[in-house]
Amino acid sequence: MNTEAYMIELGKQARHAANTMARAETGQKNRALEAMAAALDAARADLHAANDKDLQAGREKGLDAAMLDRLELTPARVNAMIEGLQQVIALPDPVGGITGMNYRPSGIQVGKMRVPLGVVGIIYESRPNVTVEAASLCLKSGNATILRGGSEAMHSNQAIAECIKIGLKQAGLPESVVQVVNTTDREAVGHLITMPEYVDVIVPRGGKGLIERISKDARVPVIKHLDGVCHVYIDKAADKAKAINIALNAKTHRYGTCNTMETLLVHSDLAADVLPDLAERYQSSGVELRGCEVARQSLPYIKAATEEDWFTEYLAPVLAIKVVDSLNDAIKHINHYGSHHTDSIVTENYTDARIFLRAVDSSSVMVNASTRFADGFEYGLGAEIGISTDKIHARGPVGLEGLTSEKYVVLGDGHIRQ
Amino acid sequence: MNTEAYMIELGKQARHAANTMARAETGQKNRALEAMAAALDAARADLHAANDKDLQAGREKGLDAAMLDRLELTPARVNAMIEGLQQVIALPDPVGGITGMNYRPSGIQVGKMRVPLGVVGIIYESRPNVTVEAASLCLKSGNATILRGGSEAMHSNQAIAECIKIGLKQAGLPESVVQVVNTTDREAVGHLITMPEYVDVIVPRGGKGLIERISKDARVPVIKHLDGVCHVYIDKAADKAKAINIALNAKTHRYGTCNTMETLLVHSDLAADVLPDLAERYQSSGVELRGCEVARQSLPYIKAATEEDWFTEYLAPVLAIKVVDSLNDAIKHINHYGSHHTDSIVTENYTDARIFLRAVDSSSVMVNASTRFADGFEYGLGAEIGISTDKIHARGPVGLEGLTSEKYVVLGDGHIRQ
Repeated sequence: MNTEAYMIELGKQARHAANTMARAETGQKNRALEAMAAALDAARADLHAANDKDLQAGREKGLDAAMLDRLELTPARVNAMIEGLQQVIALPDPVGGITGMNYRPSGIQVGKMRVPLGVVGIIYESRPNVTVEAASLCLKSGNATILRGGSEAMHSNQAIAECIKIGLKQAGLPESVVQVVNTTDREAVGHLITMPEYVDVIVPRGGKGLIERISKDARVPVIKHLDGVCHVYIDKAADKAKAINIALNAKTHRYGTCNTMETLLVHSDLAADVLPDLAERYQSSGVELRGCEVARQSLPYIKAATEEDWFTEYLAPVLAIKVVDSLNDAIKHINHYGSHHTDSIVTENYTDARIFLRAVDSSSVMVNASTRFADGFEYGLGAEIGISTDKIHARGPVGLEGLTSEKYVVLGDGHIRQ
Repeated sequence: MNTEAYMIELGKQARHAANTMARAETGQKNRALEAMAAALDAARADLHAANDKDLQAGREKGLDAAMLDRLELTPARVNAMIEGLQQVIALPDPVGGITGMNYRPSGIQVGKMRVPLGVVGIIYESRPNVTVEAASLCLKSGNATILRGGSEAMHSNQAIAECIKIGLKQAGLPESVVQVVNTTDREAVGHLITMPEYVDVIVPRGGKGLIERISKDARVPVIKHLDGVCHVYIDKAADKAKAINIALNAKTHRYGTCNTMETLLVHSDLAADVLPDLAERYQSSGVELRGCEVARQSLPYIKAATEEDWFTEYLAPVLAIKVVDSLNDAIKHINHYGSHHTDSIVTENYTDARIFLRAVDSSSVMVNASTRFADGFEYGLGAEIGISTDKIHARGPVGLEGLTSEKYVVLGDGHIRQ
């Protein structure tokens, strides 16, 4: 069978499984997740053997240390996969929930029922633990899944897929509820993202390059964010201690995450007071600073920022600093240069906070809090399949609810339209 | 300026206007709508003169009577446009509403704020009244709009656009909040649907051919439905009188609407009892019936339905009838042959109703009510920009809320991530 025929076959199976899943009871879904956890626990030796094959092939191919590290299924990572399944079991099932049933003047009663999206395609790179995480969230939200992991993790992913199948079977669900693509042919991705008849949404997880390619070519909606150019704005009315704490935490808590601040904006009234103290703290953490002309009046020893810097997600200990003359200039800068991910204002002023919350066009907008809080667990979603910076459907961290939508429910007693 | 440069210019203007609109107050938006209504009222002579040009050109081009009728701006239709504006003024403003603000263990407070989508592109055919209707819904929901109407209505649409501009100006809003494309070059549509940097969502209104082309080529999310192959299923446990009333109303109330029933499913236990009475009523309304083999045992004089019939949206006094042996067969038929628009079960059985509601994968699922109720006004949305059969974002009738999404709001008091 060629790759196209194979992917269409997966699609058909998934569509069929989605119909079963839409009606699956919460208890049955939880039993499948429980059985998957047990199967993973029982298959540790097989998982490590499969992973060793991938690691060896990776070393032969000359993968770098970071990539090999992501690829490795340590015993601790297998434990984490099992714990992840337990967490998903504990989450409330969003499917079938009915809200807002109100009577209309015609006599019908109208409301909405939460339903699965159907078939979710997940495209990810070389972390095999994503296989279990993504599959479990899609399963709990009543969706069928087609998973396409990085070719470097092929053996590990197939070993994990076996455990998932055991779990599905034990709970009496079709094995095709979760399908892991078993070809390394790159064409498979091209087919997966252009089958709207079989796939309802694509969630790509990985580097910006991967996500850009997928968004460009997809004929199916894509839940994604390309990058996180996040800002903290220190307002004229900021509390200095809060400003310094938040600005430091947002940059230095972790460098490689999408909710890390990449540009700091400071109101001109406070720049001379706040920037020298803050710069000292950044420099003792090893953060390279790049500033606008005005920022460099307070910090003459730092590099000049270029236009390019304001658009850049460094994912590294580098920070761009810009001094602005007003709240409105800060908002304009964020909406123009930012990536609509997460932006925070530090202020004690009620009106400034209200304006910022309303006018900043980002998936998370914060007052007096670190951008690092933008996360499904921190927001109470229980888990996160990704973060969306798109405006349609889900914005911000996407949990179980983001993998569902709502249909209308109408109840009558023989009502007809007049 | 060539068409591409012109469309990019419209896009830039719209993106800029969207930033203003996101912060516009409810009162200001209502004042603009009020001023538009007054401007339309004052410009009746100009509107009719412009419309006469379109009608004359249409007659010369040999447009058919139905198309000329849709194109005509009678005094009653101008009244209806003005009344429509009053109705939109009366609708609650969804923008800025905050819900679910809950404290998290970290101490931050997290909830969601409803926000406009940004720039909405509307593509429609030759009904000039759509210009005001679409513009007013987008405006009230805080969006900027680019409207591209059918070339046959060019003069009428430009005359209406002048009134809209007067309204925007009087309320102190930028004129570029609503822009009507003033070229008849077909390329304009191609550019409008492939500028994700300037347009956030496309709403096409018109025939299936138009919508299919747009969906296929768009690089921007599209809110749409292709067709309405709606079903009524008369369950084994149906009340006969309700079944007959609903089946008649769903087919004969109006033939050309997307929520009209196109296929009737009847449980085999009831077929011999219900079908002859029902067929008599349909035939006295002039509805042509086409049946499966079993249906034709009760109605030997009707045409045989082909496989094609089960997929067909007739939009005409034609009905396909199929006898099924179980609720599950009915559900399978609907999910396979239907268009995920609107489907209704007639039953007195509690469990059958619950199963149907959960398992039918359509944007509106009904019990003991006519499919003709699937409508934004009937559902209490106040207005409707279209009906979506997609699963992402909005399903079913799309009102003001469907033109918005939600961003996360996080409030802290200097909180940092541990």
